[in-house]
Formats: sequence, structure tokens, C-alpha cells
Amino acid sequence: MSVATTEHPVLLTPGPLTTSPQTRQAMLRDWGSWDADFNQITTRVRQHLLEIAHAAQTHECVPLQGSGTFSVEAAIGTIVPRNGHVLVPMNGAYCQRIARICEYLGRRVSTHSYAEDQAISPADIDRLLSADASITHVAVVHCETSTGILNPLQEIAKVVHKHGKSLIIDAMSSFGAVEVDARATPFDALIAASGKCIEGVPGMGFVLVRRSVLESCKGNAHSLVLDLHDQWVYMQKTTQWRFTPPTHVVAALDQALQQHRAEGGLAARGARYASNCRQLIDGLAALGLKSFLPREIQAPIIVTIHAPCHANYNFQAFYNAVKRQGFILYPGKLTTVETFRVGCMGHFGGEGMRAAIAAIAHVLDEMEISVAA
Amino acid sequence: MSVATTEHPVLLTPGPLTTSPQTRQAMLRDWGSWDADFNQITTRVRQHLLEIAHAAQTHECVPLQGSGTFSVEAAIGTIVPRNGHVLVPMNGAYCQRIARICEYLGRRVSTHSYAEDQAISPADIDRLLSADASITHVAVVHCETSTGILNPLQEIAKVVHKHGKSLIIDAMSSFGAVEVDARATPFDALIAASGKCIEGVPGMGFVLVRRSVLESCKGNAHSLVLDLHDQWVYMQKTTQWRFTPPTHVVAALDQALQQHRAEGGLAARGARYASNCRQLIDGLAALGLKSFLPREIQAPIIVTIHAPCHANYNFQAFYNAVKRQGFILYPGKLTTVETFRVGCMGHFGGEGMRAAIAAIAHVLDEMEISVAA
Repeated sequence: MSVATTEHPVLLTPGPLTTSPQTRQAMLRDWGSWDADFNQITTRVRQHLLEIAHAAQTHECVPLQGSGTFSVEAAIGTIVPRNGHVLVPMNGAYCQRIARICEYLGRRVSTHSYAEDQAISPADIDRLLSADASITHVAVVHCETSTGILNPLQEIAKVVHKHGKSLIIDAMSSFGAVEVDARATPFDALIAASGKCIEGVPGMGFVLVRRSVLESCKGNAHSLVLDLHDQWVYMQKTTQWRFTPPTHVVAALDQALQQHRAEGGLAARGARYASNCRQLIDGLAALGLKSFLPREIQAPIIVTIHAPCHANYNFQAFYNAVKRQGFILYPGKLTTVETFRVGCMGHFGGEGMRAAIAAIAHVLDEMEISVAA
Repeated sequence: MSVATTEHPVLLTPGPLTTSPQTRQAMLRDWGSWDADFNQITTRVRQHLLEIAHAAQTHECVPLQGSGTFSVEAAIGTIVPRNGHVLVPMNGAYCQRIARICEYLGRRVSTHSYAEDQAISPADIDRLLSADASITHVAVVHCETSTGILNPLQEIAKVVHKHGKSLIIDAMSSFGAVEVDARATPFDALIAASGKCIEGVPGMGFVLVRRSVLESCKGNAHSLVLDLHDQWVYMQKTTQWRFTPPTHVVAALDQALQQHRAEGGLAARGARYASNCRQLIDGLAALGLKSFLPREIQAPIIVTIHAPCHANYNFQAFYNAVKRQGFILYPGKLTTVETFRVGCMGHFGGEGMRAAIAAIAHVLDEMEISVAA
């Protein structure tokens, strides 16, 4: 798969990301939100998303307008009762955001912090759940986009299940490319969004919620628009969204899902991203640029790279120069180390990665930044 | 302006509505949400929306992901303090929704109900505000899409201002086509969305908030994602959205706003819709179909039509037949009278309306529904 020839830069960012021309072209039609043709798309998308997680028998897919964070807040607000207590293991910005949401919502929250280059430890979760029986829910980020860490989700899920607690997974940057199988990884809610590994455009999220849990959630939510129970009940009754859906975004997601299936589903998508990721890390290493994470906890989604230790480097100039070469990078999000990030998710493969690495090499040369060993 | 030649039906619906090909084509490019090029679009859109309401000197435009209702809830949650008391005059489904939001948010709410074919009376607001000094805010729907009623906004605003109370306007279906001038109609917040009279695609809303009010709103919000103060502070600091924006929807709105200006701004847009509306009412009347509202309170947005009183009529069959002719109608929303609705907003003019009326005439004939006087 090659990078589409275009006058516009390719996004090496973790969503919005580079989509296929077919996905964008699906937005060239207006749809009536009340019309049966559109509601068939919604139904098809919901079913397809459940199937990716092998969750059609046990869970319901509730789509929601807004960015992925809207769906994260909706999941916390709908599923955690007002007297619930959420444990949030933290190794990045997105875990921190979940804790902040709990505070806004007045849900009791306990956190457990890790260094930014450390994965969450299932043994810690085991110990923390044993130590405090009042914890009702564990909310965990599968792949921390702030660094690119892959947390050991299956082991965490087993521990949470053993304690009889409820697991909420923020799978924003992994869903569709890194396996989460509901039959083997018990969860009550899993959240992701349209504009990530499925390669749709941004504008909606969705939550896969265990049916029996969802049925018991009436009245929990702190917000009308974020009430997933109300959204689900209305959708079951009418096949429609409660409030105006982002029709073009939904149509693009449907198209992107068809391409996901045609590519070979999650396994093929994950393999392409893993190949992109290896090629990126190796290619940048050959230029003397070191990645921040050890390989064994690196998710094939986005790579954090140490900024070149050179007087000529500054991120904005580097970013602008790489953009002139046709590629959009992503800034680092670490507080203690200077880094930048390069996404390996989106509608590109080996050829795109080669071109991106060549562009970065060209810019290092242009800026007279010599970092090779 | 003609209806675009297309194999797809034209939407005669109040949003999502029929957009122009240029607006949809603006979605053929992916944008990085962190990139300066995209953030210039956001800044330009915010400024343009303020100018339409002559509010650039006094107000701030805070855009928000999601449907228009997300922005309505965000405005209530951010602007009304937790001990506030909201008066909601009610003559349709969208006023009812505001009251429901207040209940979800635990904000005290008082309502005052009208028949569905009656406009809100400013004298009633005056009396209600005099009778209960604890009311802090009045939330009013400018144009009730459930029927098409235009409420007398300017007179209501004067009364609310006289009492020193805060006015929140749901201008979802009027903004950009029916004048609201912040210099003459004092309001603290006005809410609308991308996919209505500006003729963008659905997926984001926005709130014009009086700057001095917005500055005092820190800590009010019940929700992280719906916290307009936090969204505004972040956007002022970074020019970026706090959470992933619906980039394609924002780019389409920017394009739609340029077309709004090129057409002649609000006055020209309003005149086209008013002409569409007159043509529609007269054309359907000639077929024996009566509109529900008296002309003097009919907004030039959407028209509620009495269902034909004929044994051969049922809405679904009528809808499907009109759809086969290339037009999507909208169901009625009244509880006591059987009606359907026809939007007169969207990217079409006289020729489009003529074709729509001809399609309806054809279908009445086909269904052997004779209603002519």
C-alpha cells in the first residue's frame, strides 16, 4: 500500500490520521438522519464494531457523537454508579484524563502511578484490589498514546475478573489493530473512536458495553447527551440516534470498516502497523534517532523518539521542515525528556514509511543536525 | 440556485440538510489537529460566527464537538451556576429538551407551557420574572423546529434584560438566516450548530458567550468534555481544540461560511429561505394541503403540514413515494394532530421548491389522494 499521491501532507499522527480516498469520498453524499437508508448504515457499523471484538453475543455497541473523550466520559458516567469507586493505574496523559473525568463527575477515584516508560503491572492491580474492597471499577488505557506504551490488558482483565470487579478499557488507539477478544478478555466497557485504527474520520466514538451491565445503568448518567443507556434504549426502539448524528462521519466509518475487513481484519491491520513500526524504529535508529520505549512494551501505533541532542535542533523548525517534505509529525508529550512522536497508524505501509524516513533524513541533513553514531 | 443534479435524494429536513458540492468536497482532505493550518481554520470559523451575530466586540465563540444538543447542554452546564434557577417557556420539543437537561444537571427549572401553535409571550416572561426573583436565567428557543414557530426573541430579550436576568438562546435552526444582533438583542449565550442554516455538515455546535460571563464560569460545569470555560481557556492559549476536533466537519463549515458570505450573508440567506417557505406553503395549499401555523408566527425554516384527511394516506407510504421522486421529507412531531414537515432550509431555491412541490403533487395523484378544495 502506498501513500496516496496528494498535494497535501501525510499525517503521521495518532488520529486524525491519514485516511483512504474512498473513505473521504463516502462523505460526498448528504444523508437524512431519520431515513431508513442511513439507519441501516448505523446498524451495520454497530454490528461490525462488535464483531471486531468478538462481542456480538455479550455486548452492545453504543455510538456517540463527539471525540473519543466524549465516549470515555459517557462510559464512566453511565456505567459507574454515583457511589462507585474507580481505580485508575496511571502511566500517561490519557489515564490522567480518566481520573480527571472521575473528579468532574464526583465519582470516587484512586490512582496508582508509574513512570512514563513503565507498563502497568497486573500484580499491582491484584494487590490494590485486595487492599481496598470498596473499589468497584478499574479503568485502564490499553495503549497510552502519550508514549506508545502497550499495557498488558489480558493479564489486567484476568486480575480484575478474579476480584469480581468491573473493567473499563480505553482502547482508543488500539481497537481494530491490537486484539481484544471479549471471549478471553472480560470487560464491561471498551471505548474507541472513528478516527483511529479503523481509519475513519474523527467525529464520533463508541462504547462496547456488556448487555447485562448496560441494562442496569438507567439513571446513573450525569448528563443527557452523554447518557449511553438513554442513547441505547432510543436506538434499539427506533434504529435512529437520539440527537443529530454526524451523518458524513458515520458514512465514512462504514466505508473504512469495509476496507478494514477487505484488508483482512484486525490481524492484517495489526500486522501492517507492526511492520510500519519496526521499519520506523529501525530507519530512525540508522539516522541516530533513538526511540524512547523498550521494544517489548512498544505498541505498533505511535513511536516516541528522543529529540536529537544537537544545538541546531528545535521542534518547531524540525516540524516545519518535515512538513515541507510532505509529512506531519506529532509533538512529544513527556514532561522530563524532550521528544517528538511519529505515528505508524493510518492509510500507508512500507513505501510510506520509507518516504517518511527519507524526509526526516533529508531534514536532519538540511538543518545540519548530525546525530549518527 | 438549483438543486444539484444528483442520484441521491434532496433533503427537505431541518439538518442534516442539503449542502453544496463545494462544502462536501472540503472534506476530501485530512488535517492534523495540531497543525497551524488547521488551527487557522478554527480561528477563522470562530471569528466569522461572531460576526454573523455582530458579537465580536462583546462575546466569544466556543465551538464544541457533537450535535447541537451537546452545545445546549454545555451552555446550560457551564453558564448556569449550580444554585441557578432557569425559566424555560415551552412551546415545543426543543424547549422540553432544555428543561430535561436542567433536570439531569440538577439545575432548578421552572417551565411555562403554551399550545404548540402559540408563540411565547414576552408579557408572560415579564410577569413570571416579577413573580419569582429567584429566577437567574431564561432559556428560550428562537425557532421551534418541532412546528416551525418563530418566537419573538427581541421582545423577550428586552424583558429579560429589564429584569437584569441572563438570557440563553437556542438559535439552532435560525442562526445565519434569521437576524439576531447582539448589539440590539442582549444575550449571554447563543447556541447553534454546523449543519443548519449555515449549510455545513453536522458534527459540531458552537456557543457565543458574553466574554464577561464566560470569564466567571470556571468550575460550574458538570462535565469535562462539556466544560465551555475549559474549552475556551485552552483554545485561547493554544489555538487548538482540547480534544480531537471533527477536522473534516470544521473544514466543511469554513467552506459553507464562505458561501454564506458570498451569497450576501444572513440577509440573503434569510430572504432565500423566506422565498422557499412562501413558495412551499402556497404550492402545497394549491394542492389542498394546509400548513399548521398562522403565517405571522411561521419561521422560514420548516413548515408543518396537516396530513391529508384521506383513507389512502399513511405517512410511511407517502414518505417512501416522495423519496422515490428524489426528496426526503420529515415526520411530524405533534402529539395531537397528524402532520408531516417539509424543510425550506438547505442548498436550494425556487427551482428546488418547484420540483419538490411537483413531486408531492405526483405522489398524491399516484396514491389517489384527492384533497383539493
